[in-house]
Amino acid sequence: MPVGTLGTVKALDPDDLTGAGVSMVLANTYHLHLRPGDDVVRDLGGLHRFMAWKGPILTDSGGFQVFSLEGLRSVDEDGVEFRSHIDGSRRRFTPESVMRIQRNLGADVIMQFDHVIPGQSTFADAQDASDRSIRWLERCLTEVRAQSSELRGSLSDSAESRVTSHESRQALFPIVQGGIHPKLRTDAARTITGMNDWHGVAIGGLSVGESKPDMYAMLDLLHPELPADRPRYLMGVGFPEDLIEGVRRGVDLFDCVAPTRMGRNGTAFSSTGRLNIKRAEFRTDGRPVDESCDCTACRRFSRAYLRHLYVSDEILGLRLLSLHNVHFLVSLMRGARAAIQAGTFDSWASEWLDRLASGPDSQT
Amino acid sequence: MPVGTLGTVKALDPDDLTGAGVSMVLANTYHLHLRPGDDVVRDLGGLHRFMAWKGPILTDSGGFQVFSLEGLRSVDEDGVEFRSHIDGSRRRFTPESVMRIQRNLGADVIMQFDHVIPGQSTFADAQDASDRSIRWLERCLTEVRAQSSELRGSLSDSAESRVTSHESRQALFPIVQGGIHPKLRTDAARTITGMNDWHGVAIGGLSVGESKPDMYAMLDLLHPELPADRPRYLMGVGFPEDLIEGVRRGVDLFDCVAPTRMGRNGTAFSSTGRLNIKRAEFRTDGRPVDESCDCTACRRFSRAYLRHLYVSDEILGLRLLSLHNVHFLVSLMRGARAAIQAGTFDSWASEWLDRLASGPDSQT
Repeated sequence: MPVGTLGTVKALDPDDLTGAGVSMVLANTYHLHLRPGDDVVRDLGGLHRFMAWKGPILTDSGGFQVFSLEGLRSVDEDGVEFRSHIDGSRRRFTPESVMRIQRNLGADVIMQFDHVIPGQSTFADAQDASDRSIRWLERCLTEVRAQSSELRGSLSDSAESRVTSHESRQALFPIVQGGIHPKLRTDAARTITGMNDWHGVAIGGLSVGESKPDMYAMLDLLHPELPADRPRYLMGVGFPEDLIEGVRRGVDLFDCVAPTRMGRNGTAFSSTGRLNIKRAEFRTDGRPVDESCDCTACRRFSRAYLRHLYVSDEILGLRLLSLHNVHFLVSLMRGARAAIQAGTFDSWASEWLDRLASGPDSQT
Repeated sequence: MPVGTLGTVKALDPDDLTGAGVSMVLANTYHLHLRPGDDVVRDLGGLHRFMAWKGPILTDSGGFQVFSLEGLRSVDEDGVEFRSHIDGSRRRFTPESVMRIQRNLGADVIMQFDHVIPGQSTFADAQDASDRSIRWLERCLTEVRAQSSELRGSLSDSAESRVTSHESRQALFPIVQGGIHPKLRTDAARTITGMNDWHGVAIGGLSVGESKPDMYAMLDLLHPELPADRPRYLMGVGFPEDLIEGVRRGVDLFDCVAPTRMGRNGTAFSSTGRLNIKRAEFRTDGRPVDESCDCTACRRFSRAYLRHLYVSDEILGLRLLSLHNVHFLVSLMRGARAAIQAGTFDSWASEWLDRLASGPDSQT
């Protein structure tokens, strides 16, 4: 999932996403709550209509953003008090309020409100946050069930069928926390999967400062604990090599700002590693960014042109590299699926990982 | 023609332009000479290929830019010496060098190098500049003819036919100058049209600070002086009302940065005047920017969404309003052509001018 923080995947048009093969996007509850306001989005027909995206949308819970506001928030059992990064106004998120906000936004998949901690947290801190996240999950589930029955009870038949086909079909995903502590991860997974028949399960609190081996160890550990027939979503992860290692460990769904953020910074993914388009050597390079790529940027434009756009601060450059990077990751995931179906995933993965590490630009 | 200063119409993709009905774009010789360099563009196959634009391209002569570099340039009979606005390096443009640069870029229509002066210049200053521009036009024509015969002489048959179908088909347009002085304009038009059978003729030095009545008077005056069967290009003009008044006075071709620059600033053209999308009243406005518009922005997005994008500094907003504005002007010109063919131009023009002045936002 490309990340559409404010209801737009930065620099891209919904048609660009469709053209790149994207099927689902993520949007941020915290950001949309502050701007333009989830009530505004609701009154305009919901997020799909607001941002003209016909495919599924997942909204996060705002937990990650709120806990990133260093010095701007305080946690208690009820929820989190914080100050808006825009105007400093005092706000409060609780499991219940976050469910209401996500209902207003109208995403297809909504995330539980969780207590996010740094990647290197101690066992005690991680246990405290994981236990609180599980108590908050119970409150989220209660709130979502109450919303659904309230809607059904208060509406006429025709309105009810409309609601049933939209809001009450929101799938609430729980988030397994526990830092890099095996016992906490296992305990959380078992408690959560025992609580409800979830549509899907997310793995949170990884890719937040811990080492790669620690991340892989947690994924390996969780593999047998999570339902095999439901999608698994590894939150905030999305570099090419991470996708491959995640899929290898059973993950189905990822999100990351990397393809668009790096695109805006002039870095392109390629099958032979990363490429910094601003480098002088590309000034007269007539080749596409990635000769094996069939995105609309690589089909039409040279490295020299893209470098020219970046050096000249032209907006089209931001869009073309963002588009290329998103297309690259979607193609990679499509390749992974085909390899799994063909029973050749391990060799496919090894080849990709070797190639990604081989390029002259891999250290960029 | 939308303006693609640096080989990209700001914030737009070539496919956006095609979708909006654009048939021809302008690019700037001065800017492309400095960055990435016209030699680089030539070595990469020319500007069409560089910017992936299949339609015709017109390049200006750089005169306007060079003469805008207040304090950075000096004029003599041979040409203009100036300093690059990028690195301060000393450069020189002459009629001959500007023809060579435009040959490197490979546009379909190339402009003569001219001496541009402020709109309110005295008769003496305007006469001096107009006479010099005509002498420079003779040198441009000589240079273009020499280039063509040199190319034909030095190449093999197959290479020659390739060149003939590209560089030597560049159409050199002369520019009628003369400020707001009727005698100078008439003299220039007669001298220029007597000099060669031009593919088209440009009218320069208008929309540079003079009053609208003065501009219209010059266009009225030139109407009978210019060949009726060749396109007339009014340089640097392009607000909706200006297009209508220009077409009324026989102009076929315009260029202006207004649609894209205003789009990036959050101002949208509409059939009832201009609209500043950032205004608070649009926060919850579910209507498209212009309810009578069928551009891809108006078909999909609300004013509320576009306002949200602008308030949040999202790149997609810059693209969507630029696209809308370009689409708006192309549609307006298409309407003008249909009205001319139907013999109803005067009433069509009156209706449009009334409507453009009617909107609540017309003073924006």
